[in-house]
Amino acid sequence: MPSNYRNFRHSVPWLILFLEAVFIVLFYFFPGDGSSRSHISYPAFQDVNHMVIFGFGFFLMFLKRYGFSSTGFNLLVIVLGVQCSMVIEGLLVFLLKMANEDRLKRITKATVSMSAVVISTGAVLGKINPVQLILMTVVEIIVFHVSRWINNTFLQVPDNIGMMHVHLFGAYFGLAVSSCFSEPSPKSEKNASTPKSDLFSMLGTLFLWVFWPSFNSVLAVNKSKAIYNTYFALAVSAVTAFVLSVLTTKDGKFSMTHIHSAVLAGGVAVGYAAHSIEYPWIAMILGLLASVIAVLGSYCLQRCLNPPLKIHDASGVHFTFGLPGVLGALAQVVLLVIKNWTNLPSLGYLVMINIGAFCVTISVALITGFITG
Amino acid sequence: MPSNYRNFRHSVPWLILFLEAVFIVLFYFFPGDGSSRSHISYPAFQDVNHMVIFGFGFFLMFLKRYGFSSTGFNLLVIVLGVQCSMVIEGLLVFLLKMANEDRLKRITKATVSMSAVVISTGAVLGKINPVQLILMTVVEIIVFHVSRWINNTFLQVPDNIGMMHVHLFGAYFGLAVSSCFSEPSPKSEKNASTPKSDLFSMLGTLFLWVFWPSFNSVLAVNKSKAIYNTYFALAVSAVTAFVLSVLTTKDGKFSMTHIHSAVLAGGVAVGYAAHSIEYPWIAMILGLLASVIAVLGSYCLQRCLNPPLKIHDASGVHFTFGLPGVLGALAQVVLLVIKNWTNLPSLGYLVMINIGAFCVTISVALITGFITG
Amino acid sequence: MPSNYRNFRHSVPWLILFLEAVFIVLFYFFPGDGSSRSHISYPAFQDVNHMVIFGFGFFLMFLKRYGFSSTGFNLLVIVLGVQCSMVIEGLLVFLLKMANEDRLKRITKATVSMSAVVISTGAVLGKINPVQLILMTVVEIIVFHVSRWINNTFLQVPDNIGMMHVHLFGAYFGLAVSSCFSEPSPKSEKNASTPKSDLFSMLGTLFLWVFWPSFNSVLAVNKSKAIYNTYFALAVSAVTAFVLSVLTTKDGKFSMTHIHSAVLAGGVAVGYAAHSIEYPWIAMILGLLASVIAVLGSYCLQRCLNPPLKIHDASGVHFTFGLPGVLGALAQVVLLVIKNWTNLPSLGYLVMINIGAFCVTISVALITGFITG
Repeated sequence: MPSNYRNFRHSVPWLILFLEAVFIVLFYFFPGDGSSRSHISYPAFQDVNHMVIFGFGFFLMFLKRYGFSSTGFNLLVIVLGVQCSMVIEGLLVFLLKMANEDRLKRITKATVSMSAVVISTGAVLGKINPVQLILMTVVEIIVFHVSRWINNTFLQVPDNIGMMHVHLFGAYFGLAVSSCFSEPSPKSEKNASTPKSDLFSMLGTLFLWVFWPSFNSVLAVNKSKAIYNTYFALAVSAVTAFVLSVLTTKDGKFSMTHIHSAVLAGGVAVGYAAHSIEYPWIAMILGLLASVIAVLGSYCLQRCLNPPLKIHDASGVHFTFGLPGVLGALAQVVLLVIKNWTNLPSLGYLVMINIGAFCVTISVALITGFITG
Repeated sequence: MPSNYRNFRHSVPWLILFLEAVFIVLFYFFPGDGSSRSHISYPAFQDVNHMVIFGFGFFLMFLKRYGFSSTGFNLLVIVLGVQCSMVIEGLLVFLLKMANEDRLKRITKATVSMSAVVISTGAVLGKINPVQLILMTVVEIIVFHVSRWINNTFLQVPDNIGMMHVHLFGAYFGLAVSSCFSEPSPKSEKNASTPKSDLFSMLGTLFLWVFWPSFNSVLAVNKSKAIYNTYFALAVSAVTAFVLSVLTTKDGKFSMTHIHSAVLAGGVAVGYAAHSIEYPWIAMILGLLASVIAVLGSYCLQRCLNPPLKIHDASGVHFTFGLPGVLGALAQVVLLVIKNWTNLPSLGYLVMINIGAFCVTISVALITGFITG
Repeated sequence: MPSNYRNFRHSVPWLILFLEAVFIVLFYFFPGDGSSRSHISYPAFQDVNHMVIFGFGFFLMFLKRYGFSSTGFNLLVIVLGVQCSMVIEGLLVFLLKMANEDRLKRITKATVSMSAVVISTGAVLGKINPVQLILMTVVEIIVFHVSRWINNTFLQVPDNIGMMHVHLFGAYFGLAVSSCFSEPSPKSEKNASTPKSDLFSMLGTLFLWVFWPSFNSVLAVNKSKAIYNTYFALAVSAVTAFVLSVLTTKDGKFSMTHIHSAVLAGGVAVGYAAHSIEYPWIAMILGLLASVIAVLGSYCLQRCLNPPLKIHDASGVHFTFGLPGVLGALAQVVLLVIKNWTNLPSLGYLVMINIGAFCVTISVALITGFITG
C-alpha cells in the first residue's frame, strides 16, 4: 500500500509536531506550583512510571510484527498522553478555579490516566495505523477527563476512586473503537505470535504484577492497607490463573493466554476497594472470583459473544481489564452495603452514587468509543 | 509418559486449589494488624519482591527447556509460599502469644523466607515434577519456620540474623532433596543451555546483584551500614569472579558458570555480619574470600565430591549459596570473638549460640531434606 | 592473534587483582563515616545504580559480538571504577582536610562519576582490548576528579553542578581516546548489529529514559523541581526524536539509531539547569532543541566531520551526550544572564565562572584523552 505509506510519512510527523507545539504553548500559560509539600513520594511515582512504560510496553509485544514498534510506540503514546493529560488538568484548574496540586501528584495522575489509553491500544493493536492511534490517544484522554469530572462534580466520587475507573474506561473504549474496524483475516501474519514475543509478553505481565500494588496505592489515602490487600488479591489471582489454565486446556499444559489475562485480574478487581477492605481474606476471595471470571470470560467470549458482535479483541482486554473491573465495581457496592446496612438512607445514596459513576463511565466510554471509531 | 501426564493434569490443579482454600480459611481467623507504624518502607519491600520474582526467576532460566516454565513456576511457587509463610507466622503469633507485627513487615519476612525455597528449587530443577515441587515448597517453608523458631526461642538468636540463615538452609535442603533423585543422563536435552538462556540467566544474576543490598538491609537494624558493607562485598566479589574465571578456564575466556556463582557469593557471605561490620575493608576481604571459595568450590566439587555422593546440583546452589553461607557464619563468629575478646564468659556464650544456630539450621535442613526427598 | 590472546590471558587478571589489592589496602586507611544522617535516600541511590548497570549495560549491547561481554564488562568496569572513585575521594578528604560526607552520598557520587567512564566506553567499543579498557577507566576517573576539583576550588562551581559535567567529560574523553585508534574496517563483523541486539539496546534506552529524572535529581538541592523539569525535557525529547526520525529517513520508517541518541538528549541538556528552571515550558524547549541537535548532529557529523578527523564513534556518544551537554551548559549561562541581568558585575562573574568550568572540563577531557590514547 504505497499511498498509505506516503500518507503516513507525510502526516504523522506534522501531526505530532503540531500537538507538541500546542502543548508547549499551553504549558506557557500554566499556573505555577500549588503546594510545596508532595503527598506522593518520588519512588511511588517511579513505580507507576515503570509499570506503564515497561509493563504495558512488553505486555503488548505479543504479536510477532510488533516487537520493536510496540515498545517504541508505547513510549511515544505515553509521552504525548501525559502531556495532553496535564494540559487538560491545567485547563480545568484554570477554568473551574479548582485547587492546584503539587507537581509530582499532577504527573502521577496523568500517568495513571494514561493506562486507560494503553489498555485501549491493546484492543485495537494490529488494526489501526499510527495517525489513528495518536488521534485516539488525544480523544480518549479528553473524554476520560470529562467522565472523571462528571463523576467528581455531580456524583461526588472522590478522586482516588474516580481514578480507578481507568481500567473499565480503557477496556470498553478500546472495544467500542475496535468493533468499528473490520476484523483482520484470522490467519494473517499480523496476528501471529512467536515463542520469543510470548516470553516478552510474559515479562511484561510479571512487571505489571510486581508493580500493581504501587499502582493501586499511589493515590489511596490508606496506602499500607491498599498495598496489603492488592498483594493478596494478586497472589490468589495468580494461583487461580495457573489452576484454571491447566483445567481448561485439553492437554493439561499451561496456556500462556489464560495466564496473561487472569494473573492480573485480581489487581484490577481489588482496585476500587483496596484502601477500605478490612481483612485480607475478602481481598483474596475477590482475587479468586476475578481470576475465574477472566478465564471463563475468555473461554465464553471468544466462542459466543465476539463473532456475532464482530468484536475482535487483539490482546483480550475485555476479560483482562473489562470484566474484572465490573466485578470490582460491584464488589465495592456490596462491601458498602454490608458496612452501612444500619443506615438505610445514606446507604441508598451511596449505592446510587457508585452505580451512577459506574454507568457514566461505561456509557461515556462506549459512546465516545463508537464515535471515535 | 502418558500416564504421568494424566496424573499431572489431575492432581496439580486440585492440590493447588486445596492449598489455596486452606489459606483463605486460615486467613479468616487471622488476628488484625499489630502496630500502625511500619519500620519497613514500601520501596524496601518492593526491592525484595523484585529480587525474588525477577532475579531468581531469570537466574533459574539457564536450562533450555525451562524458559517460560521456570519464570511461571517461580511466580506460582513464590505466591503459594508467601501465603503459606504468612499463615504459619499467624499461627505462631496465635499459639505462642507473640507480639503481632505490622502488615508490611509480615509480607517482607515471608518473601525473604521464600528465597530459601527458590534456592532449593535451583538444586532440583529438571528432576522433579510440579506436584513434588509444590509439596517441597510447603514442607520447606514449615521446616524453615520451625528451625527459625528453635533458634529464636532456645538460642536467643535475633530475628534479623535468624533470617540470614535462609541461604544456608535453602542450599542444604535443596542438596539433600536432590541427592534422593537419580541423576539425569548428562547429555540429555533437559540439561542443555543455549546462549539465549545463558543471557537471561546473566540478566537474573545482574538483578540479584543490584538488589542484594536491599535484601541484606531490609530487616537489619542499622540499614545504612548494612547497605554499605554489602555493596563493597558484592563489588569485590564481582571483580574476583571475573579474575578467577579467566585464570581457571583454559582458553582465558570468561566462563559464564563461574561468574554466575561467584558474583553473588560476597553478598551471601556478608549477610550475617553486614549490619555490624565497622570498616568496609573487612567486608571487602570477606567478599574476596567468598568469591574464591565459590569458584574453587565449583572446581573441586564437580570433580571430586559430587560423583561419589551422587549429588547432582543443577544450578550450582552448593557453591553459590551453601559454601559462602558457611563462610559468612564463620566470619560472624570470628568477628564476635575479635570484638568481645576481653569479656571471656559472655564471649563463650555468644560463640556457642552462633555455632549452635548454625548447626541447628544445617542439620534440620539436611534431615528434613532427606525425608522430603 | 594468538600472541594477543596469551597476553590478554596473562595480564588482565593480574592487573585487576593488583588494583583490587591496592583498593583494599587504601580502604583500610580510610576515615570513618562523616555524618550519620544521609541527605540521599536509599531508593534514590538504587535508581542511579540500576541506571548505570542495566541502562548503560544494555545501551552498549548493540553490536552483535558484544552481547554478553558488554553487560559483563560493564559490571566489571563499574565496580572497579566505583571503588577507584571512592579511594580518590577518600584521598582528597584526607589530603585537603575536606569535610567528610556520609556513606550513601559517597557511593552515589562515585556511581554518578562512573557514568563518564561508561559513556567513554561507548565511543571506543570494539577498538580496545580489556587491559586498555581497565587502564582507561582508572585514568579517566582520576582525571575527572582532578577536573572537578579544579572547578570546585578555583571556580567555586557547586558540587552538584560540577557533577553534571559528567556527560561532557565522558563524551569528549571518549572521542579523544577513540581518535587515537585506527578505524576498524567498516564492513567487519565487529560493527554489525542484529535485530535482537537492537532490541536490547532499545531496552537499555528505555531504562535510561525512565531513570534519568533520578540521575538529575539525586544530587540536586531542589529535588522535586529537578524531577519535574527533567521529565518534561525527556518527554519532549522523545516526541521530537520520533518525529525527526521519520522525517530524516527516506522510507518514512523509524530509525533505531536516531531514536537511541535523540530520546536521551533532552535529559542530558537539562541536567545543568534542572534544579533552577522555574517553568516547565523552558525545560520542554530545551528538550526540543537538544533532540534536534542530536539528530542533525548525527546526520552531519557522520558525513562531514568524522571522515577528515578520523573519528570513529561506535555508539554515537558525540551527538547523544556531547552536543546536548554543550547545549545544556550554554542554556545554563543564558538562563543565568536572563535571571541576573539587573546586576551586571555579578552577572559577568557568574558567566565567566560557568564558561570557565565548561572550558576546563572539555580541555582537560580532550588533552588527557589524547594522552591516554
